[in-house]
Amino acid sequence: MTVRIAIVGAGIMGADHARIVAEELPGATLQVVCDASPERARTVAQEHGAGDVTTDPVATIKRGDVDAVVIASPDDTHAPLSLAAIEAGKPVLCEKPLSQDANECLHVIEAEVARGRRFVQLGFMRRFDPSYRDLKAILDDGSLGRAIMMHNFHRNVEVPANFTGQMAVTNSAPHEFDVARFVLSTDYKAISVFQPSVVDTTKTGAPVFMVLETDKGQLVNIEINNNAAYGYDVRGELVGEKGSVLLNAPVYTRRNDQLMAYERYAPDWRPRFAEAYRLQDKAFLEFVRSGVFTTVAADAWDGYCAARVAEAGIEALATGARVGITMDARPDLYRRPKLP
Amino acid sequence: MTVRIAIVGAGIMGADHARIVAEELPGATLQVVCDASPERARTVAQEHGAGDVTTDPVATIKRGDVDAVVIASPDDTHAPLSLAAIEAGKPVLCEKPLSQDANECLHVIEAEVARGRRFVQLGFMRRFDPSYRDLKAILDDGSLGRAIMMHNFHRNVEVPANFTGQMAVTNSAPHEFDVARFVLSTDYKAISVFQPSVVDTTKTGAPVFMVLETDKGQLVNIEINNNAAYGYDVRGELVGEKGSVLLNAPVYTRRNDQLMAYERYAPDWRPRFAEAYRLQDKAFLEFVRSGVFTTVAADAWDGYCAARVAEAGIEALATGARVGITMDARPDLYRRPKLP
Amino acid sequence: MTVRIAIVGAGIMGADHARIVAEELPGATLQVVCDASPERARTVAQEHGAGDVTTDPVATIKRGDVDAVVIASPDDTHAPLSLAAIEAGKPVLCEKPLSQDANECLHVIEAEVARGRRFVQLGFMRRFDPSYRDLKAILDDGSLGRAIMMHNFHRNVEVPANFTGQMAVTNSAPHEFDVARFVLSTDYKAISVFQPSVVDTTKTGAPVFMVLETDKGQLVNIEINNNAAYGYDVRGELVGEKGSVLLNAPVYTRRNDQLMAYERYAPDWRPRFAEAYRLQDKAFLEFVRSGVFTTVAADAWDGYCAARVAEAGIEALATGARVGITMDARPDLYRRPKLP
Amino acid sequence: MTVRIAIVGAGIMGADHARIVAEELPGATLQVVCDASPERARTVAQEHGAGDVTTDPVATIKRGDVDAVVIASPDDTHAPLSLAAIEAGKPVLCEKPLSQDANECLHVIEAEVARGRRFVQLGFMRRFDPSYRDLKAILDDGSLGRAIMMHNFHRNVEVPANFTGQMAVTNSAPHEFDVARFVLSTDYKAISVFQPSVVDTTKTGAPVFMVLETDKGQLVNIEINNNAAYGYDVRGELVGEKGSVLLNAPVYTRRNDQLMAYERYAPDWRPRFAEAYRLQDKAFLEFVRSGVFTTVAADAWDGYCAARVAEAGIEALATGARVGITMDARPDLYRRPKLP
Repeated sequence: MTVRIAIVGAGIMGADHARIVAEELPGATLQVVCDASPERARTVAQEHGAGDVTTDPVATIKRGDVDAVVIASPDDTHAPLSLAAIEAGKPVLCEKPLSQDANECLHVIEAEVARGRRFVQLGFMRRFDPSYRDLKAILDDGSLGRAIMMHNFHRNVEVPANFTGQMAVTNSAPHEFDVARFVLSTDYKAISVFQPSVVDTTKTGAPVFMVLETDKGQLVNIEINNNAAYGYDVRGELVGEKGSVLLNAPVYTRRNDQLMAYERYAPDWRPRFAEAYRLQDKAFLEFVRSGVFTTVAADAWDGYCAARVAEAGIEALATGARVGITMDARPDLYRRPKLP
Repeated sequence: MTVRIAIVGAGIMGADHARIVAEELPGATLQVVCDASPERARTVAQEHGAGDVTTDPVATIKRGDVDAVVIASPDDTHAPLSLAAIEAGKPVLCEKPLSQDANECLHVIEAEVARGRRFVQLGFMRRFDPSYRDLKAILDDGSLGRAIMMHNFHRNVEVPANFTGQMAVTNSAPHEFDVARFVLSTDYKAISVFQPSVVDTTKTGAPVFMVLETDKGQLVNIEINNNAAYGYDVRGELVGEKGSVLLNAPVYTRRNDQLMAYERYAPDWRPRFAEAYRLQDKAFLEFVRSGVFTTVAADAWDGYCAARVAEAGIEALATGARVGITMDARPDLYRRPKLP
Repeated sequence: MTVRIAIVGAGIMGADHARIVAEELPGATLQVVCDASPERARTVAQEHGAGDVTTDPVATIKRGDVDAVVIASPDDTHAPLSLAAIEAGKPVLCEKPLSQDANECLHVIEAEVARGRRFVQLGFMRRFDPSYRDLKAILDDGSLGRAIMMHNFHRNVEVPANFTGQMAVTNSAPHEFDVARFVLSTDYKAISVFQPSVVDTTKTGAPVFMVLETDKGQLVNIEINNNAAYGYDVRGELVGEKGSVLLNAPVYTRRNDQLMAYERYAPDWRPRFAEAYRLQDKAFLEFVRSGVFTTVAADAWDGYCAARVAEAGIEALATGARVGITMDARPDLYRRPKLP
Repeated sequence: MTVRIAIVGAGIMGADHARIVAEELPGATLQVVCDASPERARTVAQEHGAGDVTTDPVATIKRGDVDAVVIASPDDTHAPLSLAAIEAGKPVLCEKPLSQDANECLHVIEAEVARGRRFVQLGFMRRFDPSYRDLKAILDDGSLGRAIMMHNFHRNVEVPANFTGQMAVTNSAPHEFDVARFVLSTDYKAISVFQPSVVDTTKTGAPVFMVLETDKGQLVNIEINNNAAYGYDVRGELVGEKGSVLLNAPVYTRRNDQLMAYERYAPDWRPRFAEAYRLQDKAFLEFVRSGVFTTVAADAWDGYCAARVAEAGIEALATGARVGITMDARPDLYRRPKLP
């Protein structure tokens, strides 16, 4: 029994999910591609052999020949379409963020709680990245002692002109908020945000540096540097009582040329996290089939947490002060063995 | 239309192909698992949801509900079973070697030539490894200038007690023979073999060092060190007129502990070449569907070449002399754009 | 004409300076070793062939057969003995800190200003380390664009039981304060200090994390982790508008063993900074001979700045707030081409 | 009592020794600089403050105010001038080679044997390089097990037009012959030489690849690639029964720029081996003072061995055959604890 999947949103991410569903997921069928632009939907559908193209996302979600949905449409549609999927009783893999508004995330959570089960798997794909998985495994096996600090660096070559400094906190940092929280199995209690004013902080891609304090008393430091110029580079180091572990990005060759020994950076995130996306989508398929939510994947609650931290981050950025973070009570539905 | 695949041989490699077919190849079905030991077949079949188990390989190959075959049975069955598949008109992914006897390889070639098409894809999976692919792409784009030398290192933790020094040449080195020939797009004209006599050269896993000369006048140096003790480690460097390129094995984390900064080696080849196996098996599926042999994969002719080089290597090992290598004329069927 | 040098303080650092003076500095003579413990002085004197041993530091400084002084006695003697050297008109290489009390540093500065020249070279040896020198040269040649952030990590295996959390700020961090200020050619305007409370922050070697803001609007982030357990590890990364540069510690071999590829850490700072100490002491000898203060070396003003930043750091640690840093006016004597 | 040193030959190497003697060796005086070109001698003398300049090397060696000699004049003068120094009873640090003619080396050896002591320290400076020293120390401490193979790579950016393929064996390779022999504490019994004919083997800088067999039955593989184009790069790996060790060249920074993470190569050998030269010259000074030859330094016998191996290499290159190497009996004078 193949799982018939609809892709909602045929931009870069939607096209990539369509490719993964069509070519990498045994047991899945790329049933429909839906996009506001019929041409865009058609292009992706043809490239990956989808059965149909549509333009109405809610109708697509409700179709009888659709078993599960991947939402890769614009950010502000994520929560409403997730709600539509929940209403239709269909599992959904929703690109991050669930919403930038933590309260809107709570609506999704309420809908799931009302139905007594989870439907939404959130696209924090780094949880599936082999480097982060290794990092977490080493922490969990006890050989590092307790985690003390985690240093995180997120660097892009450049960002579009409309990418403000605030968006470093609301759009880039949530990946870091989530993955550090996942690795450390903890929540945050405070955030401080710094901006190097040597560059115009109102400018596109202005960097920010954040210090977060966790419930367990650890520090999570995050550099978001969206105009880093030199390459797409995500780094992380987990510092424990007995040693430390660093992420290694996979690089396939090393080259000697022109008085340099060098390895290449990719210009964007896709090569770096290609395997993470593939594994994430496989986990989603497994969730659809079994109804059992994987312990690794992010859920709606994780989406709420990331949004809540980003909101505190925006306040810290505006005020220059350390801002406390308080979370709503976590519904029982979202309690998991991996979190205390 | 799903492709129904039979796995012949349910040892380590057969089990791994069964897993890939069942879990990683959309459009393929794990139809039958065949092994001389019914229990072994059953174990693999159950683990990966195969429809049936059998013990007779030829009958399995001939089954009407089998579209293509993966041969992972003992080495001496590879050529006979490949011939059976050709006779049945079924594409076959055959684990290396095709045969250790170059003449037996020629029988397979004759059978393909007689039918006017290729059926056998040979399991030199390194051609699909992203590191070797990068290496070849960099050479082919011209930025290295002409290739001058290629250094290759193959190290295992240890090998079974029955693994003689000769087997370093006949069983381990063919991967190196093939992949260097693939990267350089050339054939070999001579081989010299050296053995460090500081260790007992008649002993299990005794190392050998080979210097091969290609038709183009390049040197291909190969260390086979099957008792390297420290880890599974495959390295390569391509030296060109303008620079050099080295293989990088993917490693996901780097660790600081006990006065060391370290990365881990795997104890065997599977983690190192997991992606290569996956991509190879995908290419085989594509070949089965389209009938078009990929330019990357190894075919029966490549199997013959590797066997021929190994035979010369055995002579060089025995005599201590440089041994010339001559190949039969390559049938037109095996001419490919990538080889001159 | 050889320069006759007195070493005051024959502990670990004094013994190392004695060795450098005796074995690495052509044109210098190890004239006297002075220590409160005559045996300790004698041991060092004998090992390195010093002419005499003494116990009274001020009398030693005043001796007619002493041209210059290295002060490596306990921290609280640094400023008084520097003042004694200034009074005696003798150049002094003083181990850091000049004083932990910024006001006491100002007394030394006043004494130098009164005599119209500098006498004190301060032992911030990292300025002579080839890695930091490279970093600075790359920044100064313009190819990085403007500096935006500098990340600094200071990790020790462990510290003595009397090493409190505060001492991370007052005793370890000044090296980082000074070298980042040197690399960036700027001063600091604010400091925030964080402590991971997962470990007992009152305990020996409790880590701290500092975010400093420079006059130019850059961020300087510093981790001091004195119980890092795994090795002595000093790292740094300078992030500019066009790229970044990282310090590489010199490591002479890489080893493959027991499923690991590893490089060694030293258990303490001496191997890491051996070359920096040698070059620093050579620069001091050159200063003594020529009377011209090198543009690289730290002077009393740099010692004041480090002390002032540490005082602000202690306040920030105690209050949890961002603390502004204001400096006294820099006397003309200490204006240098390298600082704006 | 300072040691008064004459530098004979004021080319690149002579100038570098003059600098080391003048600036890095406490207890040494740069007494005379001698060169066939008086201007060249004067330039070096002035730059490093030598007392005198001369043009007659033998007269210089004999001067009463010269205690020891550094020979850095053209290769064919090394043996005659060493003989002159022995006759004058003066220790000499002679740049490699002692002679390219093994028989001429034997004359120097006979002269030393006749006087009953060694005078010549030969400039195989790599024995003092910290990376090779580490390698040897790790082998000697037993943790690698027995050495099985050593891989050596010598790459230059380019060589002068008059640098023939033969000179790769006679002028470049002796450093490798000597240092591998030093690390392994053994002699060679055979050599095979290969040339990649893809490049014109009669051309300047044509690469060679050598396989040497040691008395202990190890393999020593050497690539000499003098037109490697990309940078000066000397690599080595020692493969033992239990693991392997690789040389790490010291690099002080790592840089991120233009989609690359890179480290720099130097364009020539001086930065790579600066520390080795310094330590070698210090050891020579110690030898002059104490009369005790260091266990690390190369002597005339080592020079003979390198010349003998190069002669066999030239024969192997010309004939394409494996050539056996036999040594004269080693005089007792040259027996050392480090060699069996």
